[in-house]
Amino acid sequence: MAQLRAFESARRQGADIPEITCFEKQADWGGQWNYSWRTGLDGHGEPVHSSMYRHLWSNGPKECLEFSDYSFDEHFGQAISSYPPRSALFDYIEGRAVKSDVRKYIQFSTAARWVDYDDAAREFTVLVEDLVTKQTRKHVFDKLVVSTGHFSTPNVPEFEGIGTFPGPVLHAHDFRGAEQFAGKNVLLVGSSYSAEDIGMQTYKMGAASATISYRSKPMGFRWPDGAREVPTIERIDGQHVIFADGSSGRFDAVILCTGYRHKFPFLPGSLALSTPNVLYPANLYKGIVWQGNPDLFYIGMQDQYYTFNMFDAQAWLARDYIMGRREVPGNLERQEDIQLWLQKQEALHTHEDEVDFQTDYVKDLISLTDYPPFDLDAVAVLFKQWMHDKEENILGYRDGVHTSVMTGTTASAHHTAWLDAMDDSIEAYLSTPIGSQP
Amino acid sequence: MAQLRAFESARRQGADIPEITCFEKQADWGGQWNYSWRTGLDGHGEPVHSSMYRHLWSNGPKECLEFSDYSFDEHFGQAISSYPPRSALFDYIEGRAVKSDVRKYIQFSTAARWVDYDDAAREFTVLVEDLVTKQTRKHVFDKLVVSTGHFSTPNVPEFEGIGTFPGPVLHAHDFRGAEQFAGKNVLLVGSSYSAEDIGMQTYKMGAASATISYRSKPMGFRWPDGAREVPTIERIDGQHVIFADGSSGRFDAVILCTGYRHKFPFLPGSLALSTPNVLYPANLYKGIVWQGNPDLFYIGMQDQYYTFNMFDAQAWLARDYIMGRREVPGNLERQEDIQLWLQKQEALHTHEDEVDFQTDYVKDLISLTDYPPFDLDAVAVLFKQWMHDKEENILGYRDGVHTSVMTGTTASAHHTAWLDAMDDSIEAYLSTPIGSQP
Ligand SMILES: Cc1cc2nc3c(=O)[nH]c(=O)nc-3n(C[C@H](O)[C@H](O)[C@H](O)COP(=O)(O)OP(=O)(O)OC[C@H]3O[C@@H](n4cnc5c(N)ncnc54)[C@H](O)[C@@H]3O)c2cc1C
Ligand SMILES: Cc1cc2nc3c(=O)[nH]c(=O)nc-3n(C[C@H](O)[C@H](O)[C@H](O)COP(=O)(O)OP(=O)(O)OC[C@H]3O[C@@H](n4cnc5c(N)ncnc54)[C@H](O)[C@@H]3O)c2cc1C
Ligand SMILES: NC(=O)c1ccc[n+]([C@@H]2O[C@H](COP(=O)([O-])OP(=O)(O)OC[C@H]3O[C@@H](n4cnc5c(N)ncnc54)[C@H](OP(=O)(O)O)[C@@H]3O)[C@@H](O)[C@H]2O)c1
Ligand SMILES: NC(=O)c1ccc[n+]([C@@H]2O[C@H](COP(=O)([O-])OP(=O)(O)OC[C@H]3O[C@@H](n4cnc5c(N)ncnc54)[C@H](OP(=O)(O)O)[C@@H]3O)[C@@H](O)[C@H]2O)c1
Repeated sequence: MAQLRAFESARRQGADIPEITCFEKQADWGGQWNYSWRTGLDGHGEPVHSSMYRHLWSNGPKECLEFSDYSFDEHFGQAISSYPPRSALFDYIEGRAVKSDVRKYIQFSTAARWVDYDDAAREFTVLVEDLVTKQTRKHVFDKLVVSTGHFSTPNVPEFEGIGTFPGPVLHAHDFRGAEQFAGKNVLLVGSSYSAEDIGMQTYKMGAASATISYRSKPMGFRWPDGAREVPTIERIDGQHVIFADGSSGRFDAVILCTGYRHKFPFLPGSLALSTPNVLYPANLYKGIVWQGNPDLFYIGMQDQYYTFNMFDAQAWLARDYIMGRREVPGNLERQEDIQLWLQKQEALHTHEDEVDFQTDYVKDLISLTDYPPFDLDAVAVLFKQWMHDKEENILGYRDGVHTSVMTGTTASAHHTAWLDAMDDSIEAYLSTPIGSQP
Repeated sequence: MAQLRAFESARRQGADIPEITCFEKQADWGGQWNYSWRTGLDGHGEPVHSSMYRHLWSNGPKECLEFSDYSFDEHFGQAISSYPPRSALFDYIEGRAVKSDVRKYIQFSTAARWVDYDDAAREFTVLVEDLVTKQTRKHVFDKLVVSTGHFSTPNVPEFEGIGTFPGPVLHAHDFRGAEQFAGKNVLLVGSSYSAEDIGMQTYKMGAASATISYRSKPMGFRWPDGAREVPTIERIDGQHVIFADGSSGRFDAVILCTGYRHKFPFLPGSLALSTPNVLYPANLYKGIVWQGNPDLFYIGMQDQYYTFNMFDAQAWLARDYIMGRREVPGNLERQEDIQLWLQKQEALHTHEDEVDFQTDYVKDLISLTDYPPFDLDAVAVLFKQWMHDKEENILGYRDGVHTSVMTGTTASAHHTAWLDAMDDSIEAYLSTPIGSQP
């Protein structure tokens, strides 16, 4: 959607934009934010895209992801809290897409099936399937932008004896809500955002206990009673799980919060990005231009502190390369630039370093385009405040308020603390229940 | 595996067989019978293939599916029961495959990604991905056999309000065992084999109740206490489900046993079979030759009373067409033959009619090849006895014994009644526990 908006924004400024076609396999836009009760394979037998769930609220302050050309104030017409629920963020993204009228470029319920690149003609042939009619269509393009996300295909490792576990074993990707875990002893595997948030969701919904098993290092938050971190799984024997430190426990359910894979089943190996989830994947110049073929672009393939506005900055730059407003430099120059960033990335130690790194990256992108600039250093400060708030109170950080870098508006406190909020609909979110103290 | 065996059998009889390559996306053979604890997407991010689960036992008598060129007696060297567990049937299939040494033809962990047919050259280009190295390889073939099964891609309909259901909602495809439903009120949707068997699995594992919702008509078995059939779902409101007859109930889990889709994401629409799950899909001459292109074959795309030996009969005939031992007739003749079978299919009313229909179909195939003939009428009688046994005792029919049409061997009674059997391993199956009465 950022890419379409980028072109549309140029068009409205009078530019001659190229012919654009966007294929979206879902019936609606929103990507991850287009929540569904479905798991595994969807109504057309395609992998379900979204990994989101009921009661998912933003886990970073909305002030860090705000579009610089479409503020929360403009969309909602009122101050809202800093950590809105999924429904409100979907509404916000959709608001901008509707305003810029980009729906006309999108062919919905259409899955990219296979891509072929013709070296001589410098053309991509894209085969797509209309999931409703099951017909295959062939399209030819000069440039290709891949923006299929990378938090959809679960990374599901093997653990010794996991086949003997009699209860539910699911990946975070297929988690849809913690209500069913009330009264249960839940084991979560992983030590990142999903493990943290799904662990706290089970706590919120009344699990008897939440045990979080880390591989590299614990998150170390001040967990509430009933939640704890343990090292990696040694083996599983029925309901009994033994950890690397010799400790063990008996569990009713296992949720694998073990991250995601960059997966592009529609791309030949020679064009497919293959990378772990890092801030700077190799082989992407400026994080977007495929080093093996500069007619191919990837958007949003980084691990993300910044989200919406970083995607914008990437899309604006990709647009300028595609439209020839800016020339893609030669192979060597690209390689050197990539190398520089990879070296910087290697030197990162703390989460604060990482924020600074990605701030620099987004600054670099914005400096190259006409995306409305904003105070990125102020956003970096916000991110650090957020990390601090989480250290202080993992169950309460979402009740904090921040001030928009774009508009100066300070968020309103939400009418209900996150821990007590049991309705994540946008109607409930925007209402002020009688007797509440905003 | 049947197709490879068919060629290998010709080769051993001295024939010059064509060059054969088989791509299998899993790391091992066995297809559905290759059980995994995984659900949704697998360790490579591919859709998990098998829909089988712990404690799955054959739901038809093994005497109905026996290979005519590799008997149960030959494999096990002893009489076994008529309804073996998954592990024993896997062992049996594998036994024949090992004996005929067909592993050499198979490239494992290799997924077919895209197929293109060149009309002029009459060649298929098949693009495959090595899931381990992520490299794409291109292969060219004169003939293509598609045998990817059709019980892997779940058919997942929408129901009003299903998104409000707070408990687990899963399709039979992702069901791995009923232990987690002990004490729960489970709603199953569908009225075929999966609904019946998974319903009875939940009963066996101690569910508080099993309610089975049918769309067209109830199965009408004599259900045990706590199990019942209700009409289709009208709407779902949280845990509360309202049915078409106005009755309602409160449930802890929903299992959608709503069947599967024929899905071929690697085939262009023009080559992809599109059919409901029926005994005679349209557009397949003799149930195997793609009417739109007789260089393309499909194996096992029918709804199945007969399984292993029907796949064999199909594979033997496909082999003979491919090797030119038998000529594929012209378009019109094929169309007329298809039409004849479709007309017969339309006239079927009862399950007994269906058995007779598929018996005739398999007879027809075998009459065209050198697959070792066997007494198909006797097998049809067995199927009818099986249906009768199910009517009599849905929880006990698997304790019955039948006599092999191939060898005359009468099955032994299993050492434990199905309802009490809590170990589905082949070791437990083949052992005779002390104190048991075989
Ligand atoms: C559980 C979870 C919670 C998150 N929470 C937050 C949060 O609180 N705040 C935040 O800022 N970010 C959050 N994120 C990050 C989120 O990934 C980004 O906000 C954003 O959705 C990424 O956008 P994208 O367009 O790059 O990818 P996606 O949103 O993943 O969209 C990719 C699109 O590509 C389509 N597609 C995929 N394959 C094909 C194909 N073959 N053919 C056609 N179309 C295809 C998909 O259907 C989808 O619409 C969260 C992510 C997850 C998984
Ligand atoms: C729950 C369940 C229980 C059943 N129980 C019985 C029973 O008791 N008795 C009985 O006789 N039958 C039973 N069946 C029927 C079963 O489908 C058949 O017995 C048999 O497995 C069908 O064989 P197949 O080779 O046609 O398909 P499958 O067994 O489905 O094998 C297809 C193969 O194709 C591979 N594949 C798929 N896509 C690709 C790709 N793109 N690239 C490469 N490889 C690919 C898969 O990995 C798989 O190995 C059951 C089926 C189900 C779903
Ligand atoms: N809004 C919200 O509340 C919310 C909720 C959930 C997720 N999200 C978003 O979703 C995205 C994905 O987050 P994520 O946590 O799913 O993925 P992630 O950040 O990539 O983390 C993956 C985790 O899996 C662990 N892991 C991988 N393989 C493992 C193995 N074999 N054994 C044990 N652990 C293993 C990793 O451990 P190592 O550290 O050892 O590598 C890491 O902790 C993020 O953008 C996040 O912000 C948001
Ligand atoms: N060994 C075992 O114990 C075992 C266990 C399970 C399955 N299997 C095998 O697995 C295969 C598949 O069986 P299956 O039962 O999954 O599939 P199936 O035989 O194709 O039956 C599908 C069922 O789903 C119902 N359905 C479809 N859409 C629906 C909707 N929108 N609402 C309500 N109901 C809907 C159908 O109802 P209608 O009748 O109205 O069309 C039908 O009852 C068979 O070969 C079976 O033998 C074996």
